[in-house]
Amino acid sequence: METITLEDARRVIAAAEEKAAEIGCPMDIAVVDAGGHLKSHVRMDGAFIGSISISINKAYTSIAFQTETKDLAALTQSGQELFGLSDAHGGRLVIFAGGIPLRRGDDIVGAVGVSTGTVDQDQQVAEAGAAAF
Amino acid sequence: METITLEDARRVIAAAEEKAAEIGCPMDIAVVDAGGHLKSHVRMDGAFIGSISISINKAYTSIAFQTETKDLAALTQSGQELFGLSDAHGGRLVIFAGGIPLRRGDDIVGAVGVSTGTVDQDQQVAEAGAAAF
Amino acid sequence: METITLEDARRVIAAAEEKAAEIGCPMDIAVVDAGGHLKSHVRMDGAFIGSISISINKAYTSIAFQTETKDLAALTQSGQELFGLSDAHGGRLVIFAGGIPLRRGDDIVGAVGVSTGTVDQDQQVAEAGAAAF
Amino acid sequence: METITLEDARRVIAAAEEKAAEIGCPMDIAVVDAGGHLKSHVRMDGAFIGSISISINKAYTSIAFQTETKDLAALTQSGQELFGLSDAHGGRLVIFAGGIPLRRGDDIVGAVGVSTGTVDQDQQVAEAGAAAF
Repeated sequence: METITLEDARRVIAAAEEKAAEIGCPMDIAVVDAGGHLKSHVRMDGAFIGSISISINKAYTSIAFQTETKDLAALTQSGQELFGLSDAHGGRLVIFAGGIPLRRGDDIVGAVGVSTGTVDQDQQVAEAGAAAF
Repeated sequence: METITLEDARRVIAAAEEKAAEIGCPMDIAVVDAGGHLKSHVRMDGAFIGSISISINKAYTSIAFQTETKDLAALTQSGQELFGLSDAHGGRLVIFAGGIPLRRGDDIVGAVGVSTGTVDQDQQVAEAGAAAF
Repeated sequence: METITLEDARRVIAAAEEKAAEIGCPMDIAVVDAGGHLKSHVRMDGAFIGSISISINKAYTSIAFQTETKDLAALTQSGQELFGLSDAHGGRLVIFAGGIPLRRGDDIVGAVGVSTGTVDQDQQVAEAGAAAF
Repeated sequence: METITLEDARRVIAAAEEKAAEIGCPMDIAVVDAGGHLKSHVRMDGAFIGSISISINKAYTSIAFQTETKDLAALTQSGQELFGLSDAHGGRLVIFAGGIPLRRGDDIVGAVGVSTGTVDQDQQVAEAGAAAF
């Protein structure tokens, strides 16, 4: 029942690291499998310890709701219909950019999560990772 | 004291499932007893794993505050008097629609929680479940 | 990426319930998918609320270590090599009988967990459930 | 202060992976820094999802108490002076083999944790990782 191999995860992480280096922002980068469980994580030198769990949780959230985390941002603002979503699941949900599903055909078989930079930087690096999958 | 039977919970879930199928949105559906403890849960095929705990927590929240979760939304927005409520209980509270108390006469004897769709869909399916109680 | 359907889970639960009724011990019964996430749960009338999470965690543990939970009992006693295992994972591991993997050919695609009775009763009911898969 | 670099962590993990492959047991392998925070993790194909947190927690425990986790086993058995230690820290402590500090001169600057095999296998793989540091 492997959905994503370690080799897949490393390819995604390598591409994300390359982009992070290119933009000059060290990152926590995590890849999870289709069940949302950690397959691999790296904390680049200088990336935040506070972003360890956020990178993992961004990837988890992408599996949990089958979506990019950036698409949750608008829906969860005060006054919007999912306001409070991030509080409703034991502190594991992230509702801003940087988590992206990894697809094989029509199936989501894993996800990548990136954290430490601005959300734009996180998203850019996650996209570079996802593109290598 | 049994507050709700498994047969009750199954009748509520069956009605909710039927409505979910009718609107074409697979759901996580949970029923809790008067103490807020899980009586039964189903994750329909295609429903989100992130919605397992949210469906359970919607039902829990309905017991915890003896209310539909939708009625907490206005009170907890930024600037309103209960802003922050959803942070205040270990990640178990849900402040948007989809959780409804189950009443026997004047007593709340259980609750149903539904998650995966839009909040309107969740509420509609939870109402169908509650109506069957 | 469904590994087990709700219909599968219900068949397992129905067989477990039947056995529980036959031996006169109401049970919490949970089925999880290959990722260890809850697919369905029932608490039979009279089963313990303390056993809600234990039934779910027995099924989770069977996925987490690809084993029946009863096979962890001997290894984790004081003086044995895995003593302390149950403390090492945030309170989610169960190291006594009642959790059994569900297999499709060589793959573990889910698991069933049962709790409320003696461990012998829990195991007997879990086996009845697994046999129906 | 960087205590361990990502390059260090990767060298440790690579050596551990090589040993794991040699003995035919896929492993979860984690490296933490001097603060006990995750620097990198890999789950080899076939390693347990239950061992993700156990590998990380073995490395954490090695930092938390500045020791190999195997040295906690005797002290924490039933009847011994630290019986209950593993319960005393929120489910983060591991008291059996597989966690080893990484030393630079007299300082402990990180730790490696390994899980999925027998404790002997875990220890052997962790030692191979530590030796490469």
